[in-house]
Amino acid sequence: MAESTLEELDEATCLELLSRTPVGRIGFVHKGALQILPVNHAVDDGSVVFRTTSGAKLNTALRESGQEVVYEADGWDASTRTGWSVLIRGSIAVVSDEVERTRLDQLQMRAWADDRSRRAWIRVEATEISGRRIVVPADG
Amino acid sequence: MAESTLEELDEATCLELLSRTPVGRIGFVHKGALQILPVNHAVDDGSVVFRTTSGAKLNTALRESGQEVVYEADGWDASTRTGWSVLIRGSIAVVSDEVERTRLDQLQMRAWADDRSRRAWIRVEATEISGRRIVVPADG
Repeated sequence: MAESTLEELDEATCLELLSRTPVGRIGFVHKGALQILPVNHAVDDGSVVFRTTSGAKLNTALRESGQEVVYEADGWDASTRTGWSVLIRGSIAVVSDEVERTRLDQLQMRAWADDRSRRAWIRVEATEISGRRIVVPADG
Repeated sequence: MAESTLEELDEATCLELLSRTPVGRIGFVHKGALQILPVNHAVDDGSVVFRTTSGAKLNTALRESGQEVVYEADGWDASTRTGWSVLIRGSIAVVSDEVERTRLDQLQMRAWADDRSRRAWIRVEATEISGRRIVVPADG
């Protein structure tokens, strides 16, 4: 029986996969405890942007300047028995530029839990983008 | 325009949602760096079990006995504009009991990246299971 094959993905492929996937997860440490929160994202100008109202914990992570976060997305296609996952390592920053914010508002994207009073955009500033694709043989 | 509604889920509902979702993500700290790895899971006897071959980093997490891990899964139903997410907090343990392993092997479940030489089952021993469901109004 054949083994699964595993392929490392280049950065462009990772971003392409992210751009076709609406949901990902931001991971960070808050008060010494790991947190993973799902968010709806878009890929804008080569980086992941999202809005979220999972506010308090994430805001703490933001204030702890330079704190590392990870951003993960994955997908599975049962018909081709192919899976992929992408992990971005970096930090997050609130988008403060008004022109940029207005442009992002055109993306027609929703926050996972939308709260009209807190619509800040957050950008993941990547220091590392890695991904892999696996193909699982049907006889496996 | 209506706001999204957010509902906390009880533990039984969280496990039910997990049991109907094949993919989740294990999050842990490895050498000071956050890791999030997708895995295929099952719910067995009230807890999440999975096999993985993302071996080295996860094995380190296992050896660092008592290290906290988190396990996350989520889902989005576009037709009902409903999303949910579950976060389990706890630790992981290799299933060493032969009878239990044999039973788990009957689950017909695959590892995300299957490697026949390393087929250990891992159980998430939860200390906390939390989840929430959101409903996004169509006019939002």
